[in-house]
Amino acid sequence: MKEYTDEYLNQIKEIILAKDEERANAELASLHPADIAELYRKLDVDEADYLFKLLDEEIAADVLMELDEDDRLKLISDMPAEEIAKQIDYLDTDDAVDLIQQLDEDDREEILSHIDDVEQAGDIIDLLKYDEDTAGGLMGTEMIVVNENWSMPECIKQMRLQAEDMDEIYYVYVVDNDYRLRGTLPLKMMLTHPSVSKIKHVMEDEPVSVKVDTPIDEVALDFEKYDLVAMPVVDSIGRLLGRITVDDVMDQVRELSERDYQLASGLSSDVDADDSVFAQTKARIPWLLIGIASGLLASIILGAFEAQLQVVTTLALFIPIIGGTGGNVGVQASAIVVQGLANGSLDIKNFASQLGKEILVGLLNASIITAVVLVYNLIMLPGNLAVTLSVAVSLFLVVMFATLLGTAVPLTLEKLKINPALATGPFIQISNDIVGLIIYVQISTFFLRMFTDIAI
Amino acid sequence: MKEYTDEYLNQIKEIILAKDEERANAELASLHPADIAELYRKLDVDEADYLFKLLDEEIAADVLMELDEDDRLKLISDMPAEEIAKQIDYLDTDDAVDLIQQLDEDDREEILSHIDDVEQAGDIIDLLKYDEDTAGGLMGTEMIVVNENWSMPECIKQMRLQAEDMDEIYYVYVVDNDYRLRGTLPLKMMLTHPSVSKIKHVMEDEPVSVKVDTPIDEVALDFEKYDLVAMPVVDSIGRLLGRITVDDVMDQVRELSERDYQLASGLSSDVDADDSVFAQTKARIPWLLIGIASGLLASIILGAFEAQLQVVTTLALFIPIIGGTGGNVGVQASAIVVQGLANGSLDIKNFASQLGKEILVGLLNASIITAVVLVYNLIMLPGNLAVTLSVAVSLFLVVMFATLLGTAVPLTLEKLKINPALATGPFIQISNDIVGLIIYVQISTFFLRMFTDIAI
Repeated sequence: MKEYTDEYLNQIKEIILAKDEERANAELASLHPADIAELYRKLDVDEADYLFKLLDEEIAADVLMELDEDDRLKLISDMPAEEIAKQIDYLDTDDAVDLIQQLDEDDREEILSHIDDVEQAGDIIDLLKYDEDTAGGLMGTEMIVVNENWSMPECIKQMRLQAEDMDEIYYVYVVDNDYRLRGTLPLKMMLTHPSVSKIKHVMEDEPVSVKVDTPIDEVALDFEKYDLVAMPVVDSIGRLLGRITVDDVMDQVRELSERDYQLASGLSSDVDADDSVFAQTKARIPWLLIGIASGLLASIILGAFEAQLQVVTTLALFIPIIGGTGGNVGVQASAIVVQGLANGSLDIKNFASQLGKEILVGLLNASIITAVVLVYNLIMLPGNLAVTLSVAVSLFLVVMFATLLGTAVPLTLEKLKINPALATGPFIQISNDIVGLIIYVQISTFFLRMFTDIAI
Repeated sequence: MKEYTDEYLNQIKEIILAKDEERANAELASLHPADIAELYRKLDVDEADYLFKLLDEEIAADVLMELDEDDRLKLISDMPAEEIAKQIDYLDTDDAVDLIQQLDEDDREEILSHIDDVEQAGDIIDLLKYDEDTAGGLMGTEMIVVNENWSMPECIKQMRLQAEDMDEIYYVYVVDNDYRLRGTLPLKMMLTHPSVSKIKHVMEDEPVSVKVDTPIDEVALDFEKYDLVAMPVVDSIGRLLGRITVDDVMDQVRELSERDYQLASGLSSDVDADDSVFAQTKARIPWLLIGIASGLLASIILGAFEAQLQVVTTLALFIPIIGGTGGNVGVQASAIVVQGLANGSLDIKNFASQLGKEILVGLLNASIITAVVLVYNLIMLPGNLAVTLSVAVSLFLVVMFATLLGTAVPLTLEKLKINPALATGPFIQISNDIVGLIIYVQISTFFLRMFTDIAI
């Protein structure tokens, strides 16, 4: 990975200030498009703009696709439609679709009308129809396709023609006369079987493929399971529509896991460490305010309990342990569910059996925790049986309840097609805090009535 | 993705029970090794063993590598060393190393001595020397390497020889006479430039490569940044040592993000939704007990405050909001740091500037939260200025403190080369709970002295 030192950045800034095109071009020529994109992020807008205009069109298109979505939008919003269309000409169709999807409906039409390559424009229009969160939304149409009945020399001739427009070849897809996917042709076969009469004799049949409407997270799991670098996408009757490449899938895996992590941490929008103070605050304040609202609700619940607290103040000492334990238990249970759904080790069809297993886990945890606290309080609060029993019984119920809620809520969200990660973190924490207090208030009231002569 | 219905599984179990080799073989032949591995997980050990013994050796080796580490160990622990050695013969060196690393020192030696292919055994011994968490620990030695001075026909001849032993070719690496990496040869060049005299004229120079001692998480970021399907690994003077493939990196990305998520959720060991009740409890109980210990500590802290609580019971109503807010703020701040370090948007060198930014974010959040609660309490607790001010001022301080702790702890851990995700979740939650209570107790005592004539 290229590391930009302050020294290097200052040197670049000087070159830009001096408008020294020759040296700027020399620097740019030594950088990978991904490194140029990173450099762009570290410069002021005007400086970055100066460098970007020096790039030749093909590199500029690559740099554009390496930028964050926000930076890319900033850059293309100043460009005339003709220029954007020219950049798109250099992009693979899947990247082109990602770029066009960022624009307004009107801009899209205009840009598409400026693309010279009618076939590419047509492919892009077709691809725009697919849902972004499915295999169709991720696929591109650049691939090498041969007919199963061709001979190897014929294939090689065709591949040579098709390869001209492509950056890199990883797989050759084999189709029948109806364009249904039949196999893949490992590139080594070109080397090891240069003269076979029909490639269907040397192709690998039963290729792993994915239906065009498969959700992205399943596509990612398939890539991981089958160790693929690209995967063909087919329609419902098996005709080849496009291919998905592993780099796009890696981005998805990273993005999905970051999103889950953010949701679980109470961050409400996509925020990075290098975002502004304002963006950071905006992402954090919603859940904090929900937490505050629930804290005030807790004060109301405890307010109804104030008479008891006044007489047996010791009860107040255990308010933190009740809420804290409920929160910890709930977060653990929900994390197991969210992660299981993400990596495929848990299936939504197993709702009931997962809940059953969690009841057992909850019972074990609740028993251990209750025993520890019971023994502690019997020793530390001798003669205060009402409080000791209130805390112990409440903790047992809180652990059981938090386990069930932590399991059931994300599973229910998944059933409703809402991201289950939303249920983890603050949501579980806050609900368990409130429910825990209600349990504690009720149980304490019960034991106070039983063991003391306090009139309540 | 292959979905195993109960119906299908029952059918397979019947075939196994009847020892119907013919049908079993037919079923196995239709399955991808990754699917066979998944089937294995859904069967009893004896059933799985029966199927495994039917597989031909090459497929069996692939299935072995698709299994979870635990299942794999179970399966090979019963195998004689000769048989394991035979399976290893079919594996790429990186997979072979992963397998051998699971075994005891003694078993390793014996198995290595049974490998027929001396070159492969030597490569494995060399690879075993590298740290598992570096590029060297992830690389294999299977790759196609050509000399920059060869002509294309000479290259193709050599590639044909080298390709025999390989499953798939994605890149051809070009080296100089000292075996220093000089470039890559895109496979399309074989098609488009079939007769070039020296391949250095058509190779892509300045290839992206990685030093052998680079940590795995940096390798993963490079793969994502440069959209690679394989990356060459070099020594300190640029000589080609091996290559890393994208499937291994994807597994790493998934594993690292799962590990962070688990740590942040208070799960102390690698646990999956389909693990046993005992494994689930074992992974959860440590942090729960730490939470209980801190809850009991909280009761001691509040115990010292019992006299004040007895006189002004209203103070007890705001115990939950103090701890809850500190926890929420701390988790958010630490999640930002952990994620920033993982995806490269935050650099440990920026410790001071990140802390400075967080102070501003903390001030904004603290002001908003304090204002909300202040207004609420002025309305709801008229005349109770001591409590109102105690809660407001404590909240402000708790938010500031939790922000700083949430930022500084993971950054410090990163400096100490400890996984920063350890600092998120329960740790931050629990510390902020305790510190929050101490702040609340101190501030309340101060305001009670100022506003009331209670002798404390």
